[in-house]
Amino acid sequence: MRLPYPPHRGFVSLVGAGPGDPELLTLRAVRRLQEADLVLYDALVSPETLSLASHAQRFQTGKRAGRPSIRQETINRLMVGAARRGRRVVRLKCGDPFVLGRGGEEALALAAAGIPFEVVPGLSTAIAAPALAGIPVTHRGLASSFIVVSGHAETAYGPVLRSLPAGSLTVVVLMGLASRERLASLLLDQGWAPSTPTAVLLAAGTPWARVWTGPLDALGSASVLAEVADPPGTIVIGEVVSLAETLSATAHDDLALAAGQGL
Amino acid sequence: MRLPYPPHRGFVSLVGAGPGDPELLTLRAVRRLQEADLVLYDALVSPETLSLASHAQRFQTGKRAGRPSIRQETINRLMVGAARRGRRVVRLKCGDPFVLGRGGEEALALAAAGIPFEVVPGLSTAIAAPALAGIPVTHRGLASSFIVVSGHAETAYGPVLRSLPAGSLTVVVLMGLASRERLASLLLDQGWAPSTPTAVLLAAGTPWARVWTGPLDALGSASVLAEVADPPGTIVIGEVVSLAETLSATAHDDLALAAGQGL
Repeated sequence: MRLPYPPHRGFVSLVGAGPGDPELLTLRAVRRLQEADLVLYDALVSPETLSLASHAQRFQTGKRAGRPSIRQETINRLMVGAARRGRRVVRLKCGDPFVLGRGGEEALALAAAGIPFEVVPGLSTAIAAPALAGIPVTHRGLASSFIVVSGHAETAYGPVLRSLPAGSLTVVVLMGLASRERLASLLLDQGWAPSTPTAVLLAAGTPWARVWTGPLDALGSASVLAEVADPPGTIVIGEVVSLAETLSATAHDDLALAAGQGL
Repeated sequence: MRLPYPPHRGFVSLVGAGPGDPELLTLRAVRRLQEADLVLYDALVSPETLSLASHAQRFQTGKRAGRPSIRQETINRLMVGAARRGRRVVRLKCGDPFVLGRGGEEALALAAAGIPFEVVPGLSTAIAAPALAGIPVTHRGLASSFIVVSGHAETAYGPVLRSLPAGSLTVVVLMGLASRERLASLLLDQGWAPSTPTAVLLAAGTPWARVWTGPLDALGSASVLAEVADPPGTIVIGEVVSLAETLSATAHDDLALAAGQGL
């Protein structure tokens, strides 16, 4: 179905902000931000990213780790109301809007209200956070598949993780920092080797990014520090993590400086 | 480890080109292309994306669906040789370099040769292709996790897919068009409902994108057509596919026209 979108009609873009570095925004995301009248953004979106929408009204929804500080219904109502008044609305979400970000729910609310909208995919931290730390989620001979789970509730990740043959693929856990002890013991109980290389990636793509690597049986007691409280954390479990030491020698910042760049 | 990168020293950027639409490139990918001396690109990278590197020497590696027409060793040697001669090299890969793209192998080759390099993540078709078709890989109440497998060889995807509880998550298969009959029967044998919503997404993010949706038991006989031979195809299996009908009402092209945009 194609709808006509005269320029004066409001619409909503559900935009993925990627892992945090504004250089990792897509061109479309940048354009939508520059042209927005209203930006509703999650708490962890970087100030540099937001500054691209300097002419827009900006409103933090306060959502962190899936827990909105204002209700989802309120966010939906704000989007719908502004679009009905002809505003160009950007709903800006960390990572990708459709990976554990409730983007589907927001899209359904817009569709139900008859509001024209689009989805602008962003780099998911599930893939980009490991990549920025030198960890490919797949690698020939180590893992030909990967699974992405939410660590928010064991009822969600438990049945799936318990079913997987130990060590058979890369496991990526989003929103799992608080459950890391439980996650580790669950996998160890399933026969995963205690020495399975494991990484905790904090605030990837930001200046305060931190990486912890160690064996799976040390994940539960891993002391993960960051300058931000309750940081967005990604856990990666699998042999691919062993590549980080060699591949993290890449130095984005130095390269950018050498080329005289910067957003 | 941090290496110094004086501007005159060559380096290699392993860059993800995303699903095809140049508007879905990251800002960093665009900059690297604009400043490149040499671009080594996979066969399916779009001409519009390549045109961003109009001043660079461009060389198609011919790799399609994981099968390089020139040997991986040759690609590695070209990258290393050019970087040693002080060239800025972009190795441009469809989707994300670290998702089933042999990016890890190329990064290891660069590290072994002592060549400074970086990884610029791109939108993986595993997530972006479904998103562009209105399919969130996760959605509350439908799927809280997803798995990405290569459909290239059953020895790779078989053990993992056989272990999963039927219908417990979203299954995304890359490079699986040729194996779709086998994939469907494997899942049906495992107890997945024949009616499980399934999508085949061809050439997502390009003007010749095509979407097929139907029940899992029709996947094997799905007639998938495209203007390109041997198109890059993504298969998505799971209840989230049922959202496509409602959410694909988004119209990127119309929105872009309304806003007077275009790359």
